[in-house]
Amino acid sequence: MFNSFGNIFRLTSFGESHGKGIGGVIDGFPPGITIDEEFVQQELNRRRPGQSILTTARKEPDQVEFLSGIFEGKSTGCPIGFIVWNKNQHSNDYNNLKEVYRPSHADYTYTVKYGIRDHRGGGRSSARETISRVVAGALAKLALRQLGISITAYTSQVGAIKLEGSYSDYDLDLIETNDVRCPDPVKAKEMADLIYKVKGEGDTIGGTLTCVIKGCPIGLGQPVFGKLQAALANGMLSINAAKAFEYGIGFKGIKMKGSEQNDVFYNNKGRIETHTNNSGGIQGGISNGEDIYFRVVFKPIATILMEQETVNIDGVDTTLKARGRHDACVLPRAVPIVEAMAAITILDYYLLDKTTQL
Amino acid sequence: MFNSFGNIFRLTSFGESHGKGIGGVIDGFPPGITIDEEFVQQELNRRRPGQSILTTARKEPDQVEFLSGIFEGKSTGCPIGFIVWNKNQHSNDYNNLKEVYRPSHADYTYTVKYGIRDHRGGGRSSARETISRVVAGALAKLALRQLGISITAYTSQVGAIKLEGSYSDYDLDLIETNDVRCPDPVKAKEMADLIYKVKGEGDTIGGTLTCVIKGCPIGLGQPVFGKLQAALANGMLSINAAKAFEYGIGFKGIKMKGSEQNDVFYNNKGRIETHTNNSGGIQGGISNGEDIYFRVVFKPIATILMEQETVNIDGVDTTLKARGRHDACVLPRAVPIVEAMAAITILDYYLLDKTTQL
Amino acid sequence: MFNSFGNIFRLTSFGESHGKGIGGVIDGFPPGITIDEEFVQQELNRRRPGQSILTTARKEPDQVEFLSGIFEGKSTGCPIGFIVWNKNQHSNDYNNLKEVYRPSHADYTYTVKYGIRDHRGGGRSSARETISRVVAGALAKLALRQLGISITAYTSQVGAIKLEGSYSDYDLDLIETNDVRCPDPVKAKEMADLIYKVKGEGDTIGGTLTCVIKGCPIGLGQPVFGKLQAALANGMLSINAAKAFEYGIGFKGIKMKGSEQNDVFYNNKGRIETHTNNSGGIQGGISNGEDIYFRVVFKPIATILMEQETVNIDGVDTTLKARGRHDACVLPRAVPIVEAMAAITILDYYLLDKTTQL
Amino acid sequence: MFNSFGNIFRLTSFGESHGKGIGGVIDGFPPGITIDEEFVQQELNRRRPGQSILTTARKEPDQVEFLSGIFEGKSTGCPIGFIVWNKNQHSNDYNNLKEVYRPSHADYTYTVKYGIRDHRGGGRSSARETISRVVAGALAKLALRQLGISITAYTSQVGAIKLEGSYSDYDLDLIETNDVRCPDPVKAKEMADLIYKVKGEGDTIGGTLTCVIKGCPIGLGQPVFGKLQAALANGMLSINAAKAFEYGIGFKGIKMKGSEQNDVFYNNKGRIETHTNNSGGIQGGISNGEDIYFRVVFKPIATILMEQETVNIDGVDTTLKARGRHDACVLPRAVPIVEAMAAITILDYYLLDKTTQL
Repeated sequence: MFNSFGNIFRLTSFGESHGKGIGGVIDGFPPGITIDEEFVQQELNRRRPGQSILTTARKEPDQVEFLSGIFEGKSTGCPIGFIVWNKNQHSNDYNNLKEVYRPSHADYTYTVKYGIRDHRGGGRSSARETISRVVAGALAKLALRQLGISITAYTSQVGAIKLEGSYSDYDLDLIETNDVRCPDPVKAKEMADLIYKVKGEGDTIGGTLTCVIKGCPIGLGQPVFGKLQAALANGMLSINAAKAFEYGIGFKGIKMKGSEQNDVFYNNKGRIETHTNNSGGIQGGISNGEDIYFRVVFKPIATILMEQETVNIDGVDTTLKARGRHDACVLPRAVPIVEAMAAITILDYYLLDKTTQL
Repeated sequence: MFNSFGNIFRLTSFGESHGKGIGGVIDGFPPGITIDEEFVQQELNRRRPGQSILTTARKEPDQVEFLSGIFEGKSTGCPIGFIVWNKNQHSNDYNNLKEVYRPSHADYTYTVKYGIRDHRGGGRSSARETISRVVAGALAKLALRQLGISITAYTSQVGAIKLEGSYSDYDLDLIETNDVRCPDPVKAKEMADLIYKVKGEGDTIGGTLTCVIKGCPIGLGQPVFGKLQAALANGMLSINAAKAFEYGIGFKGIKMKGSEQNDVFYNNKGRIETHTNNSGGIQGGISNGEDIYFRVVFKPIATILMEQETVNIDGVDTTLKARGRHDACVLPRAVPIVEAMAAITILDYYLLDKTTQL
Repeated sequence: MFNSFGNIFRLTSFGESHGKGIGGVIDGFPPGITIDEEFVQQELNRRRPGQSILTTARKEPDQVEFLSGIFEGKSTGCPIGFIVWNKNQHSNDYNNLKEVYRPSHADYTYTVKYGIRDHRGGGRSSARETISRVVAGALAKLALRQLGISITAYTSQVGAIKLEGSYSDYDLDLIETNDVRCPDPVKAKEMADLIYKVKGEGDTIGGTLTCVIKGCPIGLGQPVFGKLQAALANGMLSINAAKAFEYGIGFKGIKMKGSEQNDVFYNNKGRIETHTNNSGGIQGGISNGEDIYFRVVFKPIATILMEQETVNIDGVDTTLKARGRHDACVLPRAVPIVEAMAAITILDYYLLDKTTQL
Repeated sequence: MFNSFGNIFRLTSFGESHGKGIGGVIDGFPPGITIDEEFVQQELNRRRPGQSILTTARKEPDQVEFLSGIFEGKSTGCPIGFIVWNKNQHSNDYNNLKEVYRPSHADYTYTVKYGIRDHRGGGRSSARETISRVVAGALAKLALRQLGISITAYTSQVGAIKLEGSYSDYDLDLIETNDVRCPDPVKAKEMADLIYKVKGEGDTIGGTLTCVIKGCPIGLGQPVFGKLQAALANGMLSINAAKAFEYGIGFKGIKMKGSEQNDVFYNNKGRIETHTNNSGGIQGGISNGEDIYFRVVFKPIATILMEQETVNIDGVDTTLKARGRHDACVLPRAVPIVEAMAAITILDYYLLDKTTQL
């Protein structure tokens, strides 16, 4: 029941790191939308490791094959099946993981829960699973584009190196001009240097992504349990390695009083707007027409090239040392994944909102 | 569809601030459990405003009346209907809110979404709605108690006054010994002083709550979209005024490398445990048997007694000044609400986990 | 999870026969609709026993009390809580049922499933539970009326006495002119005589209801698993004592060949229609603009005034003889219940269909 | 949202008749179960047209390819993706269907609902869609077999030729010994003759299937809206061409009084059983340990080789004559589909029932 995400627009995903492939079924996608396969592929490419020295050198072509729901280039309203076939997966590389639980991975909890585990490359718990999200997110973006809604994420912090400004202080067009996907070129260079250094140590580093949704109509969200921020948090915390979510002013607002944090309304030439946007575009769980923005914390990737203590599947203390390639920082690759989960959520809530009025 | 929360154990709630009452239906509660009504009432009392000078002086007796699903003092497995009747609601106090949108409240977004609004006391968007959560949470706690699972929340920050330690550094039995529900008596006094001062200014202040779940069995959680942390985040962000969620090491972990943050396994006299618990008791979305802990940020309550600019329902710029009583800080009252949402989530996932194996 | 019905427009119900009352929460009802409480009460009156000699003499005033979601006479889009308080329930009348399993009732299966049972009047398994459906159905009818959709059911067979014609052969305005709710006055008299005779024997009799939905727009229904006929069947078979469901030509069509049963399209002054309507207004799971009609079989009520063999809760063979009042035929009372479940389903699918197009 | 079926054990399907293939994702399948691929293939073969002269001559190899969720021959608890690739689909054969609405098909309703239609072979509305059900049903059967639950369907009526006895009057091992899948060899011959004759006329014929579930434990089902019979009806009516559902004594019971229809309990050597089983193994929506049995009516297939009137996509009256091959009777092929939907439902409810008790 929980390999599905979304209510009306819904992704159901399948696949393991070293099985045949990663795929899914996209249900509830509106009919008549031109499927720009090149755009979908670009999104997959953004997620792919091996794009730069900053990430793992593994080559994963990751080409999507659509299996249904598209006719003469357009969506039909029927479910869109798809698969990205796994290639060049060296399963034998993982034989040493068969007998041991990697620290801060899902090996141990999966084993206890299911009593069986595909150990190759993490199996279902691998980050490769996010491929299906990116495909569904790309389609959602195509629909949202028709509605004038855009979704943009970027790396806003790596280790101690942090963008101090708000999203509106940066030129978001610069995000894709550097490997870390940061709109501040100077900070981007610092971040890249840090990642490179950490990588050299065989270690990993975390940080934050910021995401902004522009053009969202007023009224999306449900008032009590399906608040828009709750749906976004649910989506973001479902991403491997995500540890925290804040929207609007978030943590920073702790030190502001109500009189400082409240977003005062005013009439801007006939449109009701707020002077500030500490609410992050959401009030009472419902979008208010201002930009929606939030931040997601990602921990350092658990796979490091240093020797670690752990236990094996018999519960005996042992040590483990991963070999070969590794990602030193998940953030650049997580950018399209965060965008995808946001796009799925917003399209889902857009469609859901249509049921409000008779 | 979104006045319900939970999959197997599910609360469906109803009610407005100044309607007849706040209630709901609790579905999926296991049969044969003794319903300790006194305990439910205690939980409601913890949520109630007017417990001390720190919160609003409003007297709300908030007595629960169970309507079904209980026979001879025990749950029957049938849905448990309940209501807390509203009393002494001075609806006329809110007549001035009929024509105006309060800043950072839901007045404006509800109006656009629904085209109609019960303005009295915020209607459905009032914090009184959380009564139904506390009732369902109290029942969930009764079931979890039989399983040896306990859930405890406390105020860990108000404005700049912050508990620096982890939950394990404090005696959690001290939480209920002071009005702010903080396990550090010295900090509690500082927090109370700050809230009192802010209240005197007619202003409000936010902060954080920390919640810890002890005794949770290994295996709760779904591996991809229903990760345990995602379910908890979803529940927490569905609470009015909640702005952020972090679990385990959370934000702090940004500055730690993988080698520092990973939780190393070891065999503790036959039980696989971790030396540290930066994972917050959850790995790969599934509980690992360690304590689960997380933190929730609450913004300052939007209702302040100072004059604010805003617009009226005709979109005309105006000013607004709330009158009379007000809560200066939501945190103490939010403690039982956070516990309730955690209890509902854990019981739901406990029951759900039973479907994993044939 | 199964005390709820519907996807977007959703009823969650609670209550037992001899508890405090029967009620529920109606979620997803569109805002701005005038709540005609008198109409709701009329619908409840139609369901009420004791309307004539044909049914039980029990007096159940069954007055609905709305608890939320209505403001100044109109729906607000927020959940509508409601309750019908139980009155004059003589629980002691049922003391003899505490120790015994009534044949063809739910006593035994509830006991095995839950391990505990409210034996008074059948508890949750009582037909009184349908009160909540009638309330939700009445609201759904109010909304559907604005869309020009009407739903009408009637008794089409009692025992061997059967209406041979189609719904279109009768004046449906005559349905409420007789106690059995049959549009053929002559057959109605025969049916009433039969029920009266069976009642005199302390026995019960079943039959069928026919239901017709007029004015349904084209396009309601989902193509694969949520076919409109599947949703209607699901709703109908959820009613106590319902044993079968057929739509369109149904069982009769077994003896017709494809060339006889197919509904041929033609252009009726610009509107695509079918000459015949063996499809019952649904093709490929989706409404086609013709009248939707179906039939539901109800078995005889299991409670009879004759001595029956059975076992007691210790598994010992015994005999049972119900006392006092009894319904000899459920059909007349089932008419508003069938209409209610159809109305809930159609409104739900109407709202759901709005999510099809971007 | 409606290309999924089931709550805990859930199939999400995709695919069109002339797209790349038919597939799906099976979620909630218990881990550790040996996947007998040969058995799955046999079930697909039973569904396949072209098995005898009675059905269409089309050759569809229909080989399933599993894509995930299986490791070293066993299920892992992770979602099982699968696909059956379409082969030898002569899409051009259907070019004449592009411009016309076939009577009693889904062409017209799909077009109105979605505004776009894959006309090739009926697209998503094709009976080929049931391939995904048979695959999921086969896996469900593997799990149910471990629980001692068996599910068997057979053809019980074709046109006017009908098995008068109950399922217990026949040797169900004979079902697969003839082309019509009927356990009475004499009637089977008559049915085959009738189908052959109808086929010669270019026409089609309907009938009924009977299905029996043996070994189901007591307690499956939900008491109000998720009654076991409602779930089964929902599944059956979701099959193309199904027009009616009855369980237990069904329609026949109309002419029996309560005293005749009630199933009297008795103690059979320590086990509570009923002498008769008019309830069809379900009381109060919950299985009672007796055999569950039900009947499904299938209409004649809408595709006939005779000229029919209809309208084209411009609404102009025209005629249509299908060419080439056709199925004269869906019943033999529907046997494994009905079994599959029953197996999915029973496994789902078995898993769901585990959540009843703490």
